[in-house]
Amino acid sequence: MEIPPVVIDRLPLYTRALSSLQTEGRDVVSSQELGTRLGVTPAQIRKDLSYFGRFGKQGRGYNVQKLLDELHRILGLDRQWRMALVGVGKLGRAILGYEGFSPQGFRIVEAFDASPDRIGQRINSLIVKDTRDLENVLSKAPVDVGIVAVPAEFAQDVIDTLVKCGVRGILNYAPIAAHVPDGVHLKRIEPVLALQSMTYYLKSSPRPTITAARG
Amino acid sequence: MEIPPVVIDRLPLYTRALSSLQTEGRDVVSSQELGTRLGVTPAQIRKDLSYFGRFGKQGRGYNVQKLLDELHRILGLDRQWRMALVGVGKLGRAILGYEGFSPQGFRIVEAFDASPDRIGQRINSLIVKDTRDLENVLSKAPVDVGIVAVPAEFAQDVIDTLVKCGVRGILNYAPIAAHVPDGVHLKRIEPVLALQSMTYYLKSSPRPTITAARG
Repeated sequence: MEIPPVVIDRLPLYTRALSSLQTEGRDVVSSQELGTRLGVTPAQIRKDLSYFGRFGKQGRGYNVQKLLDELHRILGLDRQWRMALVGVGKLGRAILGYEGFSPQGFRIVEAFDASPDRIGQRINSLIVKDTRDLENVLSKAPVDVGIVAVPAEFAQDVIDTLVKCGVRGILNYAPIAAHVPDGVHLKRIEPVLALQSMTYYLKSSPRPTITAARG
Repeated sequence: MEIPPVVIDRLPLYTRALSSLQTEGRDVVSSQELGTRLGVTPAQIRKDLSYFGRFGKQGRGYNVQKLLDELHRILGLDRQWRMALVGVGKLGRAILGYEGFSPQGFRIVEAFDASPDRIGQRINSLIVKDTRDLENVLSKAPVDVGIVAVPAEFAQDVIDTLVKCGVRGILNYAPIAAHVPDGVHLKRIEPVLALQSMTYYLKSSPRPTITAARG
């Protein structure tokens, strides 16, 4: 059975909430409470989890540790994932400096750039390599995910090269609607697109007046 | 009629493709070609646009300029949007330095931080203000969107304060499932969540071998 992608997208939020509960020393949680923490209905949570089998007992709630382990296994978060970054400009450097990846098992193991004055530079523990050597480097030490932080006009080429190297997960920070073949998974990280769909909702009601803002 | 949010999320991609076509000097585009550029079916494009009225003539394609103007109007991209950034750590600075916002009409007009050694600093053209003054500052000069780039444990409080100040759009970079009241629009920008749902798909097929990577 094909699980709807929106369900898969919600599972990491469940694992976060469950990790918090675990940290708080909680053993059991109801779908009601989990729903409140996540801003979704308890029915939604039960439905989402039902795709993966039976968790929890009627009226007893979920065993926090067990559900967390199960979700980690389902999502593949019980292992380490190797990532290569392409593009070490301002954005790429912020990505390299981002401390949220490694605690979750995501490790940037290679960094590439096309600019001669960046190639050979050391950033944190990585030496920036030439983008032209991408195929060569990744053929020897494959990665799971490619992070694309190059200017828009180069992004599709870089993605094509990564795909050719056998990379099956692409995290694209470039503002393009990139193409990938079937079997390659692409996620777009792009604040402007998020804003541009948000404004659809914002435009219909006026900016609050000073009075409203104090309310 | 309520337009499905997934449709709204696709419209900015349409405006990007149309802008490119405009730059290339094109007057007309078929749903077929637009679909190819975006990796969606022509039928999907026709269906998405049908929510907003009739565009294009059967067999003639869309007038690029007209459709672009119309989508800008629909999405509220024909105006300027004022944004306040909260949190000027490593991530916040990268956001302030991001050059993708202003060409699209999104302008960061205020920056806040809670740390005494950051308050009063000048970053680009902004002086960092004390997060405690947020209500006071925004009551005098309201903003449309709040960008949250503070550590996870402070994010919900900051979001609550922004909402209290009348901000109705939140771009959340903190790794929490934040709550906002009805009428406030929240978008989460968070690479780890994107990765954590991607790995669901990646885990089922093994990392390519060296041979496969060269194929």
